[in-house]
Amino acid sequence: MSEQRKLTAQSEDFSAWYLEAIQRAELMDYAPVRGCIIFRPDGYELWERIQAGLNERFKATGHRNAYFPMLIPESFMQKEKEHIEGFNPELPWVTEAGGEKLEERLALRPTSETIIGHMYSKWIQSYRDLPMLLNQWANVFRWEKRTLPFLRTSEFLWQEGHTAHADEAEAREETMRMLDIYAEFAATEMAVPMVKGQKTPSERFAGAVDTYSIEGMMRDGKALQAGTSHYLGQNFAQGFDIKFLDRDNQLKLVHTTSWGVSTRLIGALVMVHGDDKGVALPPKLAPTQVVMIPIGSPKLRERVMEKFDGVFAALKEAGVRVKSDVSDATPGFKFNEWEMRGVPLRLELGPRDVDSNQCVLVRRDTGEKTTASLDNIVARVKLLLDEIQLNMYQRALSFRVSHSHTHINSLAELKEHIAAKEAAGEIAGWVLAGWCGDDDCEARVKEEVKFTSRNIPFGPPTEKSHCVTCGQAAVFTLWLARAY
Amino acid sequence: MSEQRKLTAQSEDFSAWYLEAIQRAELMDYAPVRGCIIFRPDGYELWERIQAGLNERFKATGHRNAYFPMLIPESFMQKEKEHIEGFNPELPWVTEAGGEKLEERLALRPTSETIIGHMYSKWIQSYRDLPMLLNQWANVFRWEKRTLPFLRTSEFLWQEGHTAHADEAEAREETMRMLDIYAEFAATEMAVPMVKGQKTPSERFAGAVDTYSIEGMMRDGKALQAGTSHYLGQNFAQGFDIKFLDRDNQLKLVHTTSWGVSTRLIGALVMVHGDDKGVALPPKLAPTQVVMIPIGSPKLRERVMEKFDGVFAALKEAGVRVKSDVSDATPGFKFNEWEMRGVPLRLELGPRDVDSNQCVLVRRDTGEKTTASLDNIVARVKLLLDEIQLNMYQRALSFRVSHSHTHINSLAELKEHIAAKEAAGEIAGWVLAGWCGDDDCEARVKEEVKFTSRNIPFGPPTEKSHCVTCGQAAVFTLWLARAY
Repeated sequence: MSEQRKLTAQSEDFSAWYLEAIQRAELMDYAPVRGCIIFRPDGYELWERIQAGLNERFKATGHRNAYFPMLIPESFMQKEKEHIEGFNPELPWVTEAGGEKLEERLALRPTSETIIGHMYSKWIQSYRDLPMLLNQWANVFRWEKRTLPFLRTSEFLWQEGHTAHADEAEAREETMRMLDIYAEFAATEMAVPMVKGQKTPSERFAGAVDTYSIEGMMRDGKALQAGTSHYLGQNFAQGFDIKFLDRDNQLKLVHTTSWGVSTRLIGALVMVHGDDKGVALPPKLAPTQVVMIPIGSPKLRERVMEKFDGVFAALKEAGVRVKSDVSDATPGFKFNEWEMRGVPLRLELGPRDVDSNQCVLVRRDTGEKTTASLDNIVARVKLLLDEIQLNMYQRALSFRVSHSHTHINSLAELKEHIAAKEAAGEIAGWVLAGWCGDDDCEARVKEEVKFTSRNIPFGPPTEKSHCVTCGQAAVFTLWLARAY
Repeated sequence: MSEQRKLTAQSEDFSAWYLEAIQRAELMDYAPVRGCIIFRPDGYELWERIQAGLNERFKATGHRNAYFPMLIPESFMQKEKEHIEGFNPELPWVTEAGGEKLEERLALRPTSETIIGHMYSKWIQSYRDLPMLLNQWANVFRWEKRTLPFLRTSEFLWQEGHTAHADEAEAREETMRMLDIYAEFAATEMAVPMVKGQKTPSERFAGAVDTYSIEGMMRDGKALQAGTSHYLGQNFAQGFDIKFLDRDNQLKLVHTTSWGVSTRLIGALVMVHGDDKGVALPPKLAPTQVVMIPIGSPKLRERVMEKFDGVFAALKEAGVRVKSDVSDATPGFKFNEWEMRGVPLRLELGPRDVDSNQCVLVRRDTGEKTTASLDNIVARVKLLLDEIQLNMYQRALSFRVSHSHTHINSLAELKEHIAAKEAAGEIAGWVLAGWCGDDDCEARVKEEVKFTSRNIPFGPPTEKSHCVTCGQAAVFTLWLARAY
């Protein structure tokens, strides 16, 4: 905490702001390995709180955690054709171990459908073994060309659910249940509103029949795919021979699903809530919810500290994640520092506050400053944290709504919209478009304006009658946006 | 649960018993990757409960979790000479990624001193940055020739603490604090008594100044090193240039420690508490603490089930991890099945029990059967679970004490002891021996009787005056045993 310079403004260079913000807040650091990052304690604690929130929801819906090997034999990857084609270019390979060259290369898992499929074929024999509902928390690897901390790194942490079902209806129900859980979790805990919808065929997971996603709008107007849920049909059941004897005594292939979210969610938190002061974290996930700072000259400090320590103990006792900063730095330095780190609430206590039995509370989300009696300070702090959580969600939702455009009906209009926004130094945001369903029409949008299809939303704000590219009748309504 | 045959008896073939027990209890399964296993839900849940118990203790002593990259550049491994020599033969290497041959090979981490040392040299500048107290939960890799599920696998899960301190005294204090935490955790939560002590130089961690261990006695009398804590001195500080500006304005090297326990602890649980009926799990860690089984003919079932469901709900409400088995199998089949899976307590409820407002409770640890009134069943069950936990610890401790031998003073006596025990079909157990401190004397014991030095215990039951091998004056007192 020795140097203290301002971050690049979001409006000036959002990327630069992001990279500065996450490093200055000590969420991460770059690792000396290509495309890898260190999750520093505050960054990792965000992930631990995400894990806890999701584990609770996964368990409540009947899932259990397990752990499968990280190394996947090359022959396994080959068993589902689309799967290997999709992932092959991004795989790291172990070719030597224990001083010897391996007979078969082992991939560092990019995802675990193959090895789990192999085990499911052994574990699933009868309808009594179904549904099989497992989840895994693990590190995974995708050697991507362009990396960005939290959003796209060579190694990342995630959870991957893998389930097997007796019929399609049940598997599809599971696929939707998990998508709903992701969206609810993001809204409730992360204060991030998500748009649920189906991916177009060109954006499907390699090996899936249908892929669904949740997409959030970052503060630069770009979209971030924050979680996916896949109905895999019988593709992996076929590839790995996962069969069960049904009640009618017939041997049948199971229907499988998979679904995942990753440490990318940490990036989403930062890009949705952060501002020019730095990171801003929702109270439910913040490692530190309240930072307490004593005010006033050192000679008056003793009188302050007695009260100060009492409030600190009371908050801690009540389960509030509170930290005190009694370092030698100036109050102003501390204010900036903890705002930059995203602590939702600041509590200041000076000699005059002590005299009047009150303190000053400053919200990170609005900057609002209020005084509060020390008599019921715990209840007041808890209430404020709840308010901040809700306000952060509302603000993110308003931001998305106000930067989502539904009036654009052609590629020409889309180009005009983008050009106008760029000229005004404004955010282009998301655009709702009609689509005929043709891959080429989707591809042309990307080529011409670098907007990609995010998803076909469930319950779009309005329906579209014509394809944004070819003008033919629209079969689908798509969100288009620049995306991470 | 279709087949139900008896396990191999422990006395007949302990290894066979172990492998059957962990598979039949569905703690693990073999993976189609050399030396790797699947942690199935009950096995993984044991690990999750171990993680929770340790995280609480690590946090209470000021540590925070972080996550570092799994891939370690070869040049990093080389920076601490003993370290690379120790681990090199066991490393798997990534040599290709993203379709290209890498310029530098990347090791799959066997442990993370090197990459963490590299980051510490960046993060630590001043005495104000010390102590740095981080822990990591991660998968690690050691390509060992002979593998054994949970105890020695190519990939395993563990935690590794890495701390840096301003001086030796503080670092040594930390080394001991963590060893104590391991031993206390094992005793309290795993019901496994551990012997704390120092490893001999030949058994030191590669790169450590001093290594300390906790060692437990398995039911075949063999020892299992269940956790280690290392004082690394300034070895890694030198290798990675981890320096800080001290209060006296001098630039100094830090002193570091590292300490770890792994999924090996699951193997310890099984080998310490299991018996010919199968696995037996201590209540504090058991995924299922109580299994409820309805008794009596199906036509009387309805009357039973009303009460049954009430008891189930009451236990669940009270936070007891309870499961009910209402499958079509016979009660006898179910009893065997759940005993094999290690559930600490069985609750049986039949029509006559309902009439007399009672149930039958059967302890997994002693087989003891008691009846209990349904009026205060929750309190009774909780009390019994506590009793079982304590009894399992006491029994394991008695077992260790009764199989620890302190009367042996020479290699000839040791050979005699082993031969006598073997002839009687008994367990050779552990032997307390004097040692002059010479590596050759230690090595000769291993060569001649395959007993290895476990550790130099803190507070041995008795001191030894002469070296077991050479007969010279003893400087140390060692536990010798066959070991995993």
